[in-house]
Amino acid sequence: MKLNSKNLEVGLNKTYDVIVAGGGSGGLSAAIYLARYGLSCLVVEKGKGRSFWMQDLRNYLGLPPNTPGRELLRQGREHALSLGVDYLWGYVENVKDEGDLFAVKVKVGKVNSLYPVFRSKYLIAATGIIDHLPQLPDMQNVYDYAGYSLHVCMICDGYEMRDQKAVLIVGSEAQINTAFVLNWFTPYISVLTHGLCSVGPEMRQKLAEHGYPLYESPIRRFLGENHQMRGVELADGTYIEATTGLVAMGAKYHNDYLKGIPNLQWQGENLVTDEWCRTTHPRLFAVGDLKQGLNQVAIAVADGALAATAIWRDIRRASPARQWEERLRS
Amino acid sequence: MKLNSKNLEVGLNKTYDVIVAGGGSGGLSAAIYLARYGLSCLVVEKGKGRSFWMQDLRNYLGLPPNTPGRELLRQGREHALSLGVDYLWGYVENVKDEGDLFAVKVKVGKVNSLYPVFRSKYLIAATGIIDHLPQLPDMQNVYDYAGYSLHVCMICDGYEMRDQKAVLIVGSEAQINTAFVLNWFTPYISVLTHGLCSVGPEMRQKLAEHGYPLYESPIRRFLGENHQMRGVELADGTYIEATTGLVAMGAKYHNDYLKGIPNLQWQGENLVTDEWCRTTHPRLFAVGDLKQGLNQVAIAVADGALAATAIWRDIRRASPARQWEERLRS
Repeated sequence: MKLNSKNLEVGLNKTYDVIVAGGGSGGLSAAIYLARYGLSCLVVEKGKGRSFWMQDLRNYLGLPPNTPGRELLRQGREHALSLGVDYLWGYVENVKDEGDLFAVKVKVGKVNSLYPVFRSKYLIAATGIIDHLPQLPDMQNVYDYAGYSLHVCMICDGYEMRDQKAVLIVGSEAQINTAFVLNWFTPYISVLTHGLCSVGPEMRQKLAEHGYPLYESPIRRFLGENHQMRGVELADGTYIEATTGLVAMGAKYHNDYLKGIPNLQWQGENLVTDEWCRTTHPRLFAVGDLKQGLNQVAIAVADGALAATAIWRDIRRASPARQWEERLRS
Repeated sequence: MKLNSKNLEVGLNKTYDVIVAGGGSGGLSAAIYLARYGLSCLVVEKGKGRSFWMQDLRNYLGLPPNTPGRELLRQGREHALSLGVDYLWGYVENVKDEGDLFAVKVKVGKVNSLYPVFRSKYLIAATGIIDHLPQLPDMQNVYDYAGYSLHVCMICDGYEMRDQKAVLIVGSEAQINTAFVLNWFTPYISVLTHGLCSVGPEMRQKLAEHGYPLYESPIRRFLGENHQMRGVELADGTYIEATTGLVAMGAKYHNDYLKGIPNLQWQGENLVTDEWCRTTHPRLFAVGDLKQGLNQVAIAVADGALAATAIWRDIRRASPARQWEERLRS
């Protein structure tokens, strides 16, 4: 059922089998599997994650390629609720391992916030990432194009950029290397640092050898209409013609709430997991973009199935066998 | 485009980047990803695989839980065709590794069959499995219930069986152990060997301790109406009340065409793969039920994405960088 600030006691009076932090594609898939295994679960979703921003999910089997990410999430949320999953809009602030249980502190409501602490045997971390976008004084100008003709994921949208004039927007010199992968899809690449980093002579040489111009002035605004980019205007007045773009400025990982758990193995900001998405903590799983691997809806959905199945196996094996009681009594 | 016996030369005149053997959920997902990476691919589908038989796909994020498996396949086929994938109804008879290329011999048409040989750099084996069903003189009686109230996958459908009287139909003594997992969902389990195997004293003892009766007479027929089982009648006249059932008789693996490839590592009938679904042959990938792991649509879909991505990386890294030619000439 849907929880909110008025009925939090529904969840506070339970010990959940699993709390799923994050209601994106990985978290919702996990919740659906958990519910079908007969396990109790609470999904805590802060809203507006990476898949929410996806204007078109073009590479997920079974959905027409113009399906918005938020439609996937809506369908998944309904599906999970129909199976008895508890669902709460909130922000996971902190997780403590109390030995047998996790204590999960959630911030509910942006004003007059409540801070309930829910408890579960297992935790699935499915809070994902959010891509950094270039910061402009008028962010609406960025949102007008981001997810439409200005992309954040080459695996997802390289196909949409093929053989077009493209800007590659980076925040560090290392991120410029994305150009030498993006050129599989298009060789007409202009690299924009948005004034955020300096670029050394070796990288300048490499760009020159490929014919990719480098622009180091900050972006003033994106130009175009109806979400379709036509070009980019820089602070120094330069105009760059481009009908598409890729933002490769890294991402924020929503994993602060896990930083207090001892002995978790990290690789950078990613959690290291086994083939069942189990972290180095036996009752803590990570699915989707938080773990190492491809950041794709299809992967997150499979991760959710794997984590839920591993948890079910643990709990099932620790439970007494169910016998046909009447038959044994007769 | 759709290939058929009339236009096979379209495919015979190409060297495909990838041939995908099997157009189920793993194969179609791979094809969609491959096409979006700009790689050429041919999907060969024999029809009527495991997901085709699925009456309801109840655990796949994004689709309503009453979506038939064949609807997923139809949507995926259209999606792949819209991206320029070649698609052929046929049966992969044989694969030969010619060194740089695979030669894939396909049987097309059930009468006056043709046997074209297509060539590709990479092969994705996505031909899956098909569950063994109990053989009755009237197989229509089995099909009336299979996929509705008589299930073949506990992970998928254990939830649908919960706390119901269930028959577990096995073909070997070892398969009886499924009862001690199925009892997570329901303890009212009758075990039916359909006369196919003998059962030793230890297993008899274990079943008795759980209160699960064992019936060793062959099944005569399933009883019920509108796909809803009511019970099972055995050859010896016994009537067993049951509103659901699980068939755990193993599966046929569609992998004969791979048996001539040297140095492939098998675990039983499953191909051993790395985390990108690559087998021990560097240009041969296995996705979905053919490889080790959970037999789930969500897993197969992710597998397809992984295999396609690994192949794209191989091909991209072996290709010359695309330069902005005009800019270099000017």
